[in-house]
Amino acid sequence: MASQKIKIAVVGASGYTGSDLVRLAVRHPDIEIAALTANTHAGKTMDEVFPHLGGLNLPKLVTTDAVDWSGIDAVVCGLPHATSQEVISSLPEHLKIIDMSADFRLRDADTYAQWYGNTHTALDLQKEAVYGLSEHYRDQIARARLVACPGCYPTAALMLLLPLVGAGAVDADDLIIDAKSGVSGAGRSLKQNVLFCEAGEGMTSYAVGSHRHSPEIEQELSVAAKRAITVNFTPHLVPMSRCEYLSVYARLSEGMSAAKLRALLSERYQDEPFVRVLPEGAPPATQHIRGSNSVLLSVFEDRIAGRVIMFATLDNLVKGSAGQALQNFNLMYGIEETTGLEQVALFP
Amino acid sequence: MASQKIKIAVVGASGYTGSDLVRLAVRHPDIEIAALTANTHAGKTMDEVFPHLGGLNLPKLVTTDAVDWSGIDAVVCGLPHATSQEVISSLPEHLKIIDMSADFRLRDADTYAQWYGNTHTALDLQKEAVYGLSEHYRDQIARARLVACPGCYPTAALMLLLPLVGAGAVDADDLIIDAKSGVSGAGRSLKQNVLFCEAGEGMTSYAVGSHRHSPEIEQELSVAAKRAITVNFTPHLVPMSRCEYLSVYARLSEGMSAAKLRALLSERYQDEPFVRVLPEGAPPATQHIRGSNSVLLSVFEDRIAGRVIMFATLDNLVKGSAGQALQNFNLMYGIEETTGLEQVALFP
Amino acid sequence: MASQKIKIAVVGASGYTGSDLVRLAVRHPDIEIAALTANTHAGKTMDEVFPHLGGLNLPKLVTTDAVDWSGIDAVVCGLPHATSQEVISSLPEHLKIIDMSADFRLRDADTYAQWYGNTHTALDLQKEAVYGLSEHYRDQIARARLVACPGCYPTAALMLLLPLVGAGAVDADDLIIDAKSGVSGAGRSLKQNVLFCEAGEGMTSYAVGSHRHSPEIEQELSVAAKRAITVNFTPHLVPMSRCEYLSVYARLSEGMSAAKLRALLSERYQDEPFVRVLPEGAPPATQHIRGSNSVLLSVFEDRIAGRVIMFATLDNLVKGSAGQALQNFNLMYGIEETTGLEQVALFP
Amino acid sequence: MASQKIKIAVVGASGYTGSDLVRLAVRHPDIEIAALTANTHAGKTMDEVFPHLGGLNLPKLVTTDAVDWSGIDAVVCGLPHATSQEVISSLPEHLKIIDMSADFRLRDADTYAQWYGNTHTALDLQKEAVYGLSEHYRDQIARARLVACPGCYPTAALMLLLPLVGAGAVDADDLIIDAKSGVSGAGRSLKQNVLFCEAGEGMTSYAVGSHRHSPEIEQELSVAAKRAITVNFTPHLVPMSRCEYLSVYARLSEGMSAAKLRALLSERYQDEPFVRVLPEGAPPATQHIRGSNSVLLSVFEDRIAGRVIMFATLDNLVKGSAGQALQNFNLMYGIEETTGLEQVALFP
Repeated sequence: MASQKIKIAVVGASGYTGSDLVRLAVRHPDIEIAALTANTHAGKTMDEVFPHLGGLNLPKLVTTDAVDWSGIDAVVCGLPHATSQEVISSLPEHLKIIDMSADFRLRDADTYAQWYGNTHTALDLQKEAVYGLSEHYRDQIARARLVACPGCYPTAALMLLLPLVGAGAVDADDLIIDAKSGVSGAGRSLKQNVLFCEAGEGMTSYAVGSHRHSPEIEQELSVAAKRAITVNFTPHLVPMSRCEYLSVYARLSEGMSAAKLRALLSERYQDEPFVRVLPEGAPPATQHIRGSNSVLLSVFEDRIAGRVIMFATLDNLVKGSAGQALQNFNLMYGIEETTGLEQVALFP
Repeated sequence: MASQKIKIAVVGASGYTGSDLVRLAVRHPDIEIAALTANTHAGKTMDEVFPHLGGLNLPKLVTTDAVDWSGIDAVVCGLPHATSQEVISSLPEHLKIIDMSADFRLRDADTYAQWYGNTHTALDLQKEAVYGLSEHYRDQIARARLVACPGCYPTAALMLLLPLVGAGAVDADDLIIDAKSGVSGAGRSLKQNVLFCEAGEGMTSYAVGSHRHSPEIEQELSVAAKRAITVNFTPHLVPMSRCEYLSVYARLSEGMSAAKLRALLSERYQDEPFVRVLPEGAPPATQHIRGSNSVLLSVFEDRIAGRVIMFATLDNLVKGSAGQALQNFNLMYGIEETTGLEQVALFP
Repeated sequence: MASQKIKIAVVGASGYTGSDLVRLAVRHPDIEIAALTANTHAGKTMDEVFPHLGGLNLPKLVTTDAVDWSGIDAVVCGLPHATSQEVISSLPEHLKIIDMSADFRLRDADTYAQWYGNTHTALDLQKEAVYGLSEHYRDQIARARLVACPGCYPTAALMLLLPLVGAGAVDADDLIIDAKSGVSGAGRSLKQNVLFCEAGEGMTSYAVGSHRHSPEIEQELSVAAKRAITVNFTPHLVPMSRCEYLSVYARLSEGMSAAKLRALLSERYQDEPFVRVLPEGAPPATQHIRGSNSVLLSVFEDRIAGRVIMFATLDNLVKGSAGQALQNFNLMYGIEETTGLEQVALFP
Repeated sequence: MASQKIKIAVVGASGYTGSDLVRLAVRHPDIEIAALTANTHAGKTMDEVFPHLGGLNLPKLVTTDAVDWSGIDAVVCGLPHATSQEVISSLPEHLKIIDMSADFRLRDADTYAQWYGNTHTALDLQKEAVYGLSEHYRDQIARARLVACPGCYPTAALMLLLPLVGAGAVDADDLIIDAKSGVSGAGRSLKQNVLFCEAGEGMTSYAVGSHRHSPEIEQELSVAAKRAITVNFTPHLVPMSRCEYLSVYARLSEGMSAAKLRALLSERYQDEPFVRVLPEGAPPATQHIRGSNSVLLSVFEDRIAGRVIMFATLDNLVKGSAGQALQNFNLMYGIEETTGLEQVALFP
């Protein structure tokens, strides 16, 4: 590794993904956080916006326009979609870019427009972008200038399903993904449904049949299946701050079994530091990966013959966002992939 | 209604279902709580065991043996299974009995033994018992001496699915029931997984492919389908105290649609005071029925053609247990069915 | 009681105090909810704004201007302060008014202006208003046209301290009130600090030395002490939706003891249906009064000689607001005081 | 630092303090976890007992008797009191010992016996033990063989009060410490009051006037004040897993002010990496230090003349226990004090 630190700017640092990126990056031995931007909070210190980041000697928040990019090597972008493509388009070419928004995840411009409601205005960059699911696009990420980090739900769904669909082990036309998320997935903006009194001590489903992570999951599964796949993806909001839990119901292909699926996943991920395939009979829990970059996978037999029940869990702000961004950063700079991501889950 | 109150005994009053029965029954205008039993707490006042029931002039807790049954008209039983059948077998014949345990729910003795691990020793009573799903067995309940209140999950699942399976509107062989429950479903006994630090701020699945409510759901759906049905039933533990939320994934029968299912449910339940079928696009939330005897049902189209996504939610301790017990009590005594159950949900 | 129901309007029904008033009033046998107002939600049904109030046949929300007051007997007002006095000033004289805002609680106009930042514009009404601490101003409330319901914190503090300060049993110049509140005390408006992710799984203090309930507590204690009293009042925000818990630290007057204070409180409240003074050694818990109109009080010896530790707990939305409003309504109409308020606490 | 890692044994690794020590120590560059003991779980892997510690190549749990101490350099002890002194007495002399129990905190044997209910059987070791409040006993800790880590509450209280009492800035005879703790403070053992359904969505006080951390706080404050001090210490249980929050009410000494206290604390802790004194008007929040080794202190004026309101917050399992243990370990081995403790707080 270079003796000199890599200077990064975190653009859009006032959201939860931005702040979690800062939490991790500030302890990364090869990173210097050189700039933090948040247009609506420009002029404030980071600990005025996020008091848990106090005492860390972070740069003050500035507007994106105010950054001197000549001193920056890489950008991690935590802006909302639409804004993200606009800002990234305007950045100098020497910068490596890791985007945590949805703007460069979907390779098809029409699909993007249909689901996000705005026309994509940076299609050239879109072509260049690599989908940043670290364990599955490692080589491309290592060579990329622009990496589009996957959504949190797609990360969990694809870590579980890509190997299985790719191997033809399950029926890709009968995938039901019941997802449960903590409230931080909704971000830090003010919405009534995420008030403590509204989201606490209860749960609901949301965006039923219409969540924007559906086409992203389908894009990647379609690649693996070599044909167009439609999945059921049904998210729920659960009273916890972090993490998500996916329960996936699938039909086995001929000759397959829960044990074979477990073996297939275990083999695929045996050298992966952030993935654990749990032994028979052990369901994962979000409590076991909170704050860490880990993914836990588990496979159970269904009582309906020929079906399986599978689970995937991760921390939506870490492996589902800022952690995977940093993992991709490591890949892009040839740094040991676990650097800055060794934190053990915080329990209880 | 008789001018004199009906004297009830709550047997097994020291668990959450027992205490919620007391919470409701103490305000029921036609009920006098004449005895409360809890063998391990005999001699204590109820508010030593449940301080929220203080100031209500409740009888002291005694052992079941100590009750003078001659002064009692009806028994509500909140004991664990196996104990329940033993105690109920020993009760005098003049008593009407509403059992909240699992002991008299399964009509097949072998199924009971297989799932509960003990041989049923009161098969005569089992034959006599009526399955207490109030809205579906109303007439039989009204004539019954012994009513077996359904489990909380079966109540939610069957309220949604019985009319649909009965009408042949969905494929009964492809039902996936992803259930999420609050922690009170595990009862008040001391187990590590329900400690605040273990169950809080996170979630997991449990009893995957092996939950005892599966055969109960299947028993009733098989009646409706007129053939043996196996369902996927996968429960999860969510960090809230009360309520449960079922997400049900089903395949439509030929000619059916989400709208038709919604219409079918709306018609079936149009006169039911405790059931609301929500309009298109409105998912239910547990927050909206906490503490009440209501069930909310909702139907959505799936993006996979020919499939639907449905939700059912109720308070596991009320409609899922003590509330339905009281509803059945009202039916058994010819009292207006909503009496004592008018409480509006507590939100926030 | 009149054979005809009393027609009430709830003005400002879209906040948590308004909705809790509706929750209770809709089951009050002598009340007909004839109008519900919420200017920003006019035209909606109540269950669009509060889905837990579905199925209750409530009137639609209208603007306050749109109400035909000739058909209304009484108004319960859940508006924010400043707005409240403006609206109440404009109401016809035949209406009895129960105000849950802070506008008519402080008898001194300067104190009001100092703490609330706006000049009081309805001083005539202020003079007429009765402070609605039911157990302490019962006779005046019964005769009043306008009742100003106390703040939630003052209700808890005064229920505990008024008898003690009035009897000279504690040093009124050395009262430390450490208060902990659930998040609903902050209302339903969108503020960052009450998001689930911000308020959950942690706690903080707020408004230290500057909370608006301080002068209200002091006003009433000064009356009891017959001289001006200043108290320490330090509120904290705790991750629960409802209820509040006050820990009060005081110095005993000569000859006093924890036991004597307990006896004094027990005697004072022996006939009060909503107040329980707990026996020696029993601390109250918010879980024991959630959703009910009860107040629990408790007194302990301090290890520092001559000092005591006392606790008071209540549900901020019930006895701290909507429940006490209804209790005052009962007093104003000569209805049995507990009517509509018999709900037992919801636990767990 | 030695090129070879220091081999530690964690004795009593199956509680929350033990597991948090492992969470931190496993990432400490100079530590090798050579043994983990837990008598009731001997034979299990650590991730069977704590699944969040999976994938870390930890040694299996063994009984304490089974450890070969010759290969161990240091012991961190997470046993309950009484057991702790028994086990530590039996350990070979070459071991450095960091005890997280209460057994060696109180220097007076009678005080120990009075508060803990058992006679101290290792008084020689007690004499040798250094009270491990890192920032205040740094030199003694560096030279110690046996360090008694303070209780969580005493750590918070003393970090705030030692400098103030030592400087005579507040009246040490009028200190009121209202403490609020997350539920993990009660440990992982099965008790009804810490079930999710009992401790969730509500709060209470406990051990009023009788908490065992009182004499520990008093012991150290008495040293600082050079006379015997008695404090009011009143703990509360709040529905969060980690952290604690102390609100301290004090009377200023002549000539003192909130600003002067703040200045005094700021100066005292200006070079301390784990202590932050917040600026005027900023209350701390537990959310800001969760999972980190930080302590936040804050001082406010009271509205009662001559009084102040102060706050201290820390993570009970980190700075209040395992983190401080590791900080002391660093001191004992001459390692940079922050090593292994750099984790930023996890928020949200």
